[in-house]
Amino acid sequence: MIDKIALLKDAATRLRINSIKATEAAKSGHPTSCSSIAEVMAVLFLDEMKYFVYQPRHPSNDRFVLSKGHAAPILYAAWAEAGLLSEAELLNLRKIDSDLEGHPTPRLNFIDVATGSLGQGLSNAAGMAYTGKYIDKAKYRVYCIIGDGESAEGSIWEALAFSSYYKLDNLVAIFDVNRLGQSQPACLQHDLDCYRRRVEAFGCHAIVVDGHNISELLKAFEKARVIKGKPVAIIMKTYKGYDFPDVSDKENWHGKPLGSNSAKTIEHLEKELTVPSTLGNLKPQEPLVDCEEMHLLGTLKLPTPPPYKKGDKIATREAYGKALARLGSIYPRVIGLDGDTKNSTFSIYLRDARPEQFIECFIAEQNLVGVAIGCATRQRTVPFVSTFAAFLSRAYDQIRMGAISQTNCNFAGSHVGVSIGEDGASQMGLEDLAMFRAIQGSTVFYPSDGVSCERAVELAANTKGICFIRTGRPAVPIIYDANEDFVIGKAKVCVTAQPKGEDHVTVIGAGVTLLEALKAAEVLKAEGINLRVIDPFTIKPLDADLIASSVKQTHGRLITVEDHAPQGGLSEAVAVALGEKGVSFTQHVLAINEVPHSGKPDELLSKYRINSTAICEEARALMHI
Amino acid sequence: MIDKIALLKDAATRLRINSIKATEAAKSGHPTSCSSIAEVMAVLFLDEMKYFVYQPRHPSNDRFVLSKGHAAPILYAAWAEAGLLSEAELLNLRKIDSDLEGHPTPRLNFIDVATGSLGQGLSNAAGMAYTGKYIDKAKYRVYCIIGDGESAEGSIWEALAFSSYYKLDNLVAIFDVNRLGQSQPACLQHDLDCYRRRVEAFGCHAIVVDGHNISELLKAFEKARVIKGKPVAIIMKTYKGYDFPDVSDKENWHGKPLGSNSAKTIEHLEKELTVPSTLGNLKPQEPLVDCEEMHLLGTLKLPTPPPYKKGDKIATREAYGKALARLGSIYPRVIGLDGDTKNSTFSIYLRDARPEQFIECFIAEQNLVGVAIGCATRQRTVPFVSTFAAFLSRAYDQIRMGAISQTNCNFAGSHVGVSIGEDGASQMGLEDLAMFRAIQGSTVFYPSDGVSCERAVELAANTKGICFIRTGRPAVPIIYDANEDFVIGKAKVCVTAQPKGEDHVTVIGAGVTLLEALKAAEVLKAEGINLRVIDPFTIKPLDADLIASSVKQTHGRLITVEDHAPQGGLSEAVAVALGEKGVSFTQHVLAINEVPHSGKPDELLSKYRINSTAICEEARALMHI
Repeated sequence: MIDKIALLKDAATRLRINSIKATEAAKSGHPTSCSSIAEVMAVLFLDEMKYFVYQPRHPSNDRFVLSKGHAAPILYAAWAEAGLLSEAELLNLRKIDSDLEGHPTPRLNFIDVATGSLGQGLSNAAGMAYTGKYIDKAKYRVYCIIGDGESAEGSIWEALAFSSYYKLDNLVAIFDVNRLGQSQPACLQHDLDCYRRRVEAFGCHAIVVDGHNISELLKAFEKARVIKGKPVAIIMKTYKGYDFPDVSDKENWHGKPLGSNSAKTIEHLEKELTVPSTLGNLKPQEPLVDCEEMHLLGTLKLPTPPPYKKGDKIATREAYGKALARLGSIYPRVIGLDGDTKNSTFSIYLRDARPEQFIECFIAEQNLVGVAIGCATRQRTVPFVSTFAAFLSRAYDQIRMGAISQTNCNFAGSHVGVSIGEDGASQMGLEDLAMFRAIQGSTVFYPSDGVSCERAVELAANTKGICFIRTGRPAVPIIYDANEDFVIGKAKVCVTAQPKGEDHVTVIGAGVTLLEALKAAEVLKAEGINLRVIDPFTIKPLDADLIASSVKQTHGRLITVEDHAPQGGLSEAVAVALGEKGVSFTQHVLAINEVPHSGKPDELLSKYRINSTAICEEARALMHI
Repeated sequence: MIDKIALLKDAATRLRINSIKATEAAKSGHPTSCSSIAEVMAVLFLDEMKYFVYQPRHPSNDRFVLSKGHAAPILYAAWAEAGLLSEAELLNLRKIDSDLEGHPTPRLNFIDVATGSLGQGLSNAAGMAYTGKYIDKAKYRVYCIIGDGESAEGSIWEALAFSSYYKLDNLVAIFDVNRLGQSQPACLQHDLDCYRRRVEAFGCHAIVVDGHNISELLKAFEKARVIKGKPVAIIMKTYKGYDFPDVSDKENWHGKPLGSNSAKTIEHLEKELTVPSTLGNLKPQEPLVDCEEMHLLGTLKLPTPPPYKKGDKIATREAYGKALARLGSIYPRVIGLDGDTKNSTFSIYLRDARPEQFIECFIAEQNLVGVAIGCATRQRTVPFVSTFAAFLSRAYDQIRMGAISQTNCNFAGSHVGVSIGEDGASQMGLEDLAMFRAIQGSTVFYPSDGVSCERAVELAANTKGICFIRTGRPAVPIIYDANEDFVIGKAKVCVTAQPKGEDHVTVIGAGVTLLEALKAAEVLKAEGINLRVIDPFTIKPLDADLIASSVKQTHGRLITVEDHAPQGGLSEAVAVALGEKGVSFTQHVLAINEVPHSGKPDELLSKYRINSTAICEEARALMHI
């Protein structure tokens, strides 16, 4: 045991040295934030965790999440210590041609989730632990290191509440209480007892340790393995820049290489090494192999066409829930997560059909999204997160980070726009298209009836990157045949006078506004004005070719109508697509231009001018230009 | 005392009856969520709180925030009980021509902040309490009712940590533990002791009461008044739908009027009334008047022009900090709030100049924004919130709700785009323009140098609604004369060959991309291609007239270039503005189309094609169409 402690101590010292060298080479980075966790990283990577070093994404491996992502250099150094990287590679930190980025991303094969926006890693870890315990039913354990500064984020407490509710005894949350934040001391400084009280109140088994004492850490992890029925929180008292002379525990050393202090600090640290190079003396233990690899994307098919016929009425949110239940009933790895809105989003259909494939996350949307992203790692599951579209704004940072994490998580946001009616503006999704369109690599579905919504669910399940499905509250008629084919990026022409006649105005709507456009087309037909009505199906990617050719055929006359803010949604997607193609057009934008009031859905569609009457008025005006 | 209790009990019963009647009339709403808080609402509005009933926004009044906004009908009923509204008016609940909306909004003069997205009210209340204690230095107290379901939101715990750190003993957080959420029991059900442990661990004085027992409530509030140095949390054991026969404490009664149960329930409740009508028997106490009204907007002026001369270099984030400090040094109600990034956003300049006008909110952006919105109510302060633009995505729901709250809160988001360099994608604001543009009534500034940034700060301070100022990390040259005038919605032509020559291509950039456009203009001039380079200054509102006339003059040739996702930002704002005007154009969009890598700023501008080289290439290509 004494030998092991000495070897781990040496390893911790090397981790410190490599963190300094890498940040010196990069001329930026956070060596002091690395130093406070050197001992625990050594213990985790060389003693505690079980994993195949050269298969870092092996499904049976223990998981590690560095929630305090700015300590990335020591994470990279730990993988070098384990043998996956060379020490020389570490000097490529933050370079454009190296994936050893400033904060960890899954461009590296040993990273599951990107971190760097603080307070999110524990939710991801909780999702992995939930998956391990209840879905994989496997032995792997999940470790997450959280900074004390980021423990001020509410999402950390959401994650702890979730983890204790679901008795995630395969999860160890490690709090690095190094006292100092970026710009001043963290609010609890070294009040370890307060941390203990907080995590205990949130249902954890707490173990307070000296984070620079290897044997205390070893004992803590040993203890953590035998705690059952609750997550373990290890609260470490540490010092930022520990063992860096003149730097340790001092303010104004956040996010800076040691500069002129580096040489003497390295010299100081090298003197501590008991053996010149012990690299490789400790080998990580391999895990029990009890998980199969999963390759789910591209394999998931609805068994039969959508069970609707034209003229039936169903809200797209309900069609979403039914499709999710149909898909989930065939594929046990398709899971649903909701934030206590399952009877409104209709994800309850999956819960009822396959309770073991549903995770109730209560009213904590940040953790809801973080957990789902955790569940999706290593393709263990295909998650569908649902809540009101408005409330996905609560987790926009998590969604943004999800894109950097290369997640395949799917989102369904219900109750969009003024068509929800009386509940009022706080419940109306009016920014969700802007939010999700701006996410890199996202796919944004806006189905207008039950048939297209079923296909959106099926397509989303198989599509890489973040998918968003926008669903509505009111029951709406089925407009497509059950056998209609839907493709991402392909729009549908719903109304046209061709080939017999000529179309005069292109109208693009989606959801309730598509139905209003269909009504407007009926009204205007009698006046001799032919609308070409287009259902884009996906707003991103947008079917720019079909839209461009339609707008050309209607002599540039274009109306876009959406139950959303005018910014970042359908209208702007269409405008820029036409601008990029150089198509001449005059666009009338119908959208929600102010904070909406409560009222009946029809009253609100009228008041905010996104109904058939408004479309008719704009079409007539366009005909007179 | 016995009389008072009987009168309050009658009042609570009437609040229940009116909640039922109003939701019956509306045919929607949440009567059972009202019923669990009937007693505490009666006690608060008729005994505990001190306020001028007919001046509900009087600055010396006690504040009340109904965080569980879906219980709006009982809030309206309480104001009827106090005398401000008639009972007949309550029947207009949720109608389009009544401001008694489904969830509370400040369209009503007795509401300070909109609620309805759960878990936000306590941050708003904490902002009010902070303002009362430290800025107004007044006696008013702040009361906030929080549902048990919403206490799963991490933002509640951020708010409690903030309130205890700042010793807000003028704040009472009232937890309505009615056991039932929307779709199932809340995760802690009636485990009152767990709530107690959690709020105590977060620094509150906890008082656990039977929430349906008037005398326990009276004693709790009496006790709360004498607790010093910490906020008080009153944990109430209640029942959802309390005293509604066949409904009380039953699932599946969330968000539904009582329907066929309503008549018998009203009859049951009316029998409990000891006096047929006691309306007006209890009068709220008036407050001590110790606060003046504030009318700050439109009055705030920088004392001298921006202290920069052309060619000086300063990052816009630093110019922001300096301008904020300059403004704050004159106006004691201009305050800054930050989330432990003040040495990066440079809000530290205000903290150093006027520490009493700066609130460190630590790494908890949801609460940061919620507190600021609370501070801004009743125009007590003009808050500027700063953090990295990327991290404002953490509080998008709070920002969205801020618009519904009619807040005048200002936001500065720094470290935008790939130009931050090595820290990588997690730290880059790439969705912030999309986010803030989609907010109803917002103003979005994107200053490109220190002079325009100073003016953006000054204009934001005086502008109604949410203002966002996008600032960059790198030092950039001053391009405007210190006396240059800046107006919201007015762009600047930075380069043109007119009147002597002809412009060939319009290029619109902002921040670093404007500077790249200026470089490109120099390069292309030698090739005989004249760029007209436009600085929009505000992206919302956009100077559509100037842009349209420029694009016409450059024969429709247009390049937009932005350090942001292509969706929802500058490019789409320009495209739709031109489309609405029917201007013919061909747009080349230069923006960030994938998750960026770490690297040096210049390398990244080049890799993602938003630098002068890319602009030159696109301009040449446009000249050959």
